[in-house]
Amino acid sequence: MYPIELMKRIAVYPGTFDPVTQGHEAMVLRSLPLFDHIVVAVGHNSAKPQAGYFTLEQRLEMLHKVFDKMPNVSVEAYEGLTTEFCKQKGAHFILRGLRSSTDFEYERNIAQANNALEPSIETVFIISSPGLSAINSSIVRDIHRHGGDVSQFVPEAVIPLL
Amino acid sequence: MYPIELMKRIAVYPGTFDPVTQGHEAMVLRSLPLFDHIVVAVGHNSAKPQAGYFTLEQRLEMLHKVFDKMPNVSVEAYEGLTTEFCKQKGAHFILRGLRSSTDFEYERNIAQANNALEPSIETVFIISSPGLSAINSSIVRDIHRHGGDVSQFVPEAVIPLL
Amino acid sequence: MYPIELMKRIAVYPGTFDPVTQGHEAMVLRSLPLFDHIVVAVGHNSAKPQAGYFTLEQRLEMLHKVFDKMPNVSVEAYEGLTTEFCKQKGAHFILRGLRSSTDFEYERNIAQANNALEPSIETVFIISSPGLSAINSSIVRDIHRHGGDVSQFVPEAVIPLL
Amino acid sequence: MYPIELMKRIAVYPGTFDPVTQGHEAMVLRSLPLFDHIVVAVGHNSAKPQAGYFTLEQRLEMLHKVFDKMPNVSVEAYEGLTTEFCKQKGAHFILRGLRSSTDFEYERNIAQANNALEPSIETVFIISSPGLSAINSSIVRDIHRHGGDVSQFVPEAVIPLL
Amino acid sequence: MYPIELMKRIAVYPGTFDPVTQGHEAMVLRSLPLFDHIVVAVGHNSAKPQAGYFTLEQRLEMLHKVFDKMPNVSVEAYEGLTTEFCKQKGAHFILRGLRSSTDFEYERNIAQANNALEPSIETVFIISSPGLSAINSSIVRDIHRHGGDVSQFVPEAVIPLL
Amino acid sequence: MYPIELMKRIAVYPGTFDPVTQGHEAMVLRSLPLFDHIVVAVGHNSAKPQAGYFTLEQRLEMLHKVFDKMPNVSVEAYEGLTTEFCKQKGAHFILRGLRSSTDFEYERNIAQANNALEPSIETVFIISSPGLSAINSSIVRDIHRHGGDVSQFVPEAVIPLL
Repeated sequence: MYPIELMKRIAVYPGTFDPVTQGHEAMVLRSLPLFDHIVVAVGHNSAKPQAGYFTLEQRLEMLHKVFDKMPNVSVEAYEGLTTEFCKQKGAHFILRGLRSSTDFEYERNIAQANNALEPSIETVFIISSPGLSAINSSIVRDIHRHGGDVSQFVPEAVIPLL
Repeated sequence: MYPIELMKRIAVYPGTFDPVTQGHEAMVLRSLPLFDHIVVAVGHNSAKPQAGYFTLEQRLEMLHKVFDKMPNVSVEAYEGLTTEFCKQKGAHFILRGLRSSTDFEYERNIAQANNALEPSIETVFIISSPGLSAINSSIVRDIHRHGGDVSQFVPEAVIPLL
Repeated sequence: MYPIELMKRIAVYPGTFDPVTQGHEAMVLRSLPLFDHIVVAVGHNSAKPQAGYFTLEQRLEMLHKVFDKMPNVSVEAYEGLTTEFCKQKGAHFILRGLRSSTDFEYERNIAQANNALEPSIETVFIISSPGLSAINSSIVRDIHRHGGDVSQFVPEAVIPLL
Repeated sequence: MYPIELMKRIAVYPGTFDPVTQGHEAMVLRSLPLFDHIVVAVGHNSAKPQAGYFTLEQRLEMLHKVFDKMPNVSVEAYEGLTTEFCKQKGAHFILRGLRSSTDFEYERNIAQANNALEPSIETVFIISSPGLSAINSSIVRDIHRHGGDVSQFVPEAVIPLL
Repeated sequence: MYPIELMKRIAVYPGTFDPVTQGHEAMVLRSLPLFDHIVVAVGHNSAKPQAGYFTLEQRLEMLHKVFDKMPNVSVEAYEGLTTEFCKQKGAHFILRGLRSSTDFEYERNIAQANNALEPSIETVFIISSPGLSAINSSIVRDIHRHGGDVSQFVPEAVIPLL
Repeated sequence: MYPIELMKRIAVYPGTFDPVTQGHEAMVLRSLPLFDHIVVAVGHNSAKPQAGYFTLEQRLEMLHKVFDKMPNVSVEAYEGLTTEFCKQKGAHFILRGLRSSTDFEYERNIAQANNALEPSIETVFIISSPGLSAINSSIVRDIHRHGGDVSQFVPEAVIPLL
């Protein structure tokens, strides 16, 4: 008999979240029924602490504002291979959103490489909601950098942090 | 407290399966850990019984040969809207495979329309295994029609039926 | 000096509109500032009166319900080459919506062929609104055929006609 | 020691050529330096003699007008699997043109299936010339059906036959 | 009654134009009938004056050589959000060219974000001419950097400046 | 009569090979029957010796381990335009692999630009084997950087060098 933890369906939702968008928030919300636990996981490189538009601390603070109120969701930072982090968390699933066919091509290569590295880990995709498919962190950064108003692109909880 | 059935994660894997391929078999096998039950569901139209290369009966017989030995998988035929069939089966998830970006564009429209019709139903995607991404039923039919050998494209259990 | 009609910017918005969707309605609404007049033009083939899910008369009736209230928009049926119809209407522009990269590839070939046939006619594209990009007539027909509710996909004015 | 014929690089260029276009003509012309012989091969199905816009005889006549003057090119009709026809002709290569990424996705599946059926046969792709990438037989048929002038899309030699 | 400026159809054609290509020149030429005025607008960042292969001054000089002779076209540099620049110029339209489906995916996100920021501004797309679709500034820079001859890719007027 | 060298079919297979993968190895192996000689050519820039994850020397050493045992294959480094290098080697063909439609769009632009620069040089494409299409050097570098095991992605001969 398997111990109860192994039977849980745990997913890691990896990304840079620089910053978290309404698209990320909706993705987790829609995926909650599929998993027993979702780890929103910020990939970073401690050797390059300056990389990114927002600092790791800022990004984590925003993510906590958005996801701490959701049941069965936690927020963590990690370094190194995503599959290694999945094994540490007992996660057999990687969760990713798909917005466009360019996304698809990129994600396919990573998902297949991850599956080759660790055949017990599957990447599960959900297609972004129609109204949110144009939102990505890169565009949000670009608008923010130029002093534009990004409040319609990010979760309500993070607006005061921007 | 929710009744036990509502808490189960049930997925419908819809398709025409004309015929079932190694790609379909691998998709179900890889998705087993994600769901408590998978219904492999052959969409058909009783008003057009001649549609398709193989008859509905042949397709179901092949699917039973492949999936009856897998735990928590059943095979059924259905008519009408996929979301209606999901509701009948208590399924909150539709399972689909993605092989290419052309697939993606097509699937996105259907997934978003299904989600608009029935917001409680999510479509979950898994990317096909690298070695199987070139296999699709249309190519298998074409080779079979011309007398070619399709045994490397279909599950071993269905070879005697072709 | 050019006669006044030649200076007007007239666009033909061709399609099968089988049936008209909220996506078509939004496309015309958003394009109104760009043109002095838009002709919503239903391509058909009088030799195949049975082609299509809705009849030509039904499609025209729906289009009139939607567009007759808009200023500078008219609805017409046409046969033959779209570029010939443009010349009859004094239109130097063809208007088309783009939802996806599959759309793009298809539209590019047609736009470039039309421009080769008639270099004075340009095809102008607008990208569909994010919330409407999943709606296409083919999916609406499919839901309608199976008795599903299509009211959230079509313009309000045509719901009573379905 | 291999007999001299086996060492020749022979390619089959399969298609429906309904009708042949300037794109097909340029593809063969550009591929001549790569092969010792190119067989332009019209796939057809003798059980469906009415299929196609032009008859098989018309299509072959057009192809002969275009390619008979080129050295090392022959024109033939074939039925059945393309890989079988290649084996009959001693061809180890299938030649195909790529115009767009939609083409690519379609061709990839066929090329990989053909390679699985017959590992000794490779499909070789050349990307169509920029000025010809919008030309395809389907658009040419459509213009011809509506009485438009297709002379800028087809090889000069076939204009009198249309 | 609207003041005359508001009724004019003004478009901003934004880009880096590093350097301007024959593709850019053709895009403006083909779009002239659609607008009363087109502002060719070089986006730049005064905090990073070294960014780019050609300096802002060189790029503007080339653009003036190409576009000063066209009626109703002006050339300007701008910083910050494109939608803000449009508002300054009284432009309700952003003009962009589409060459490929990769272009499309990228442009869709930007167009939808711009429309969300400023609903009164529409992005209008024209598909590049078949013979020019392979030309982009990045390839021109790469050839120029290696000492190759770029004269067939750039407007005749800028050749002496390279 | 042509001198014998001109009649040989020589291809340059250019890339950064940082590092060489099983995909590159398979591409050359499958292309051997098509050419009399293949030059695996590492593009580099002597002004930026630090560019790349592996040094030029490491990359060349790996390539020699993989390709020196193959008949009619040589390995070289080059700088500058690929078409210039082709002319130096007497090569009329550039060989490239295609894995995805994103690859295709990128390769099309380069192939068409190269053909414009040097009309006598054709780029010939082969689609990567299904099982290898997820492997690219960028993913291999990423796994290697994080200490993961890349031995299933690179040719057996280079494993000891990593």
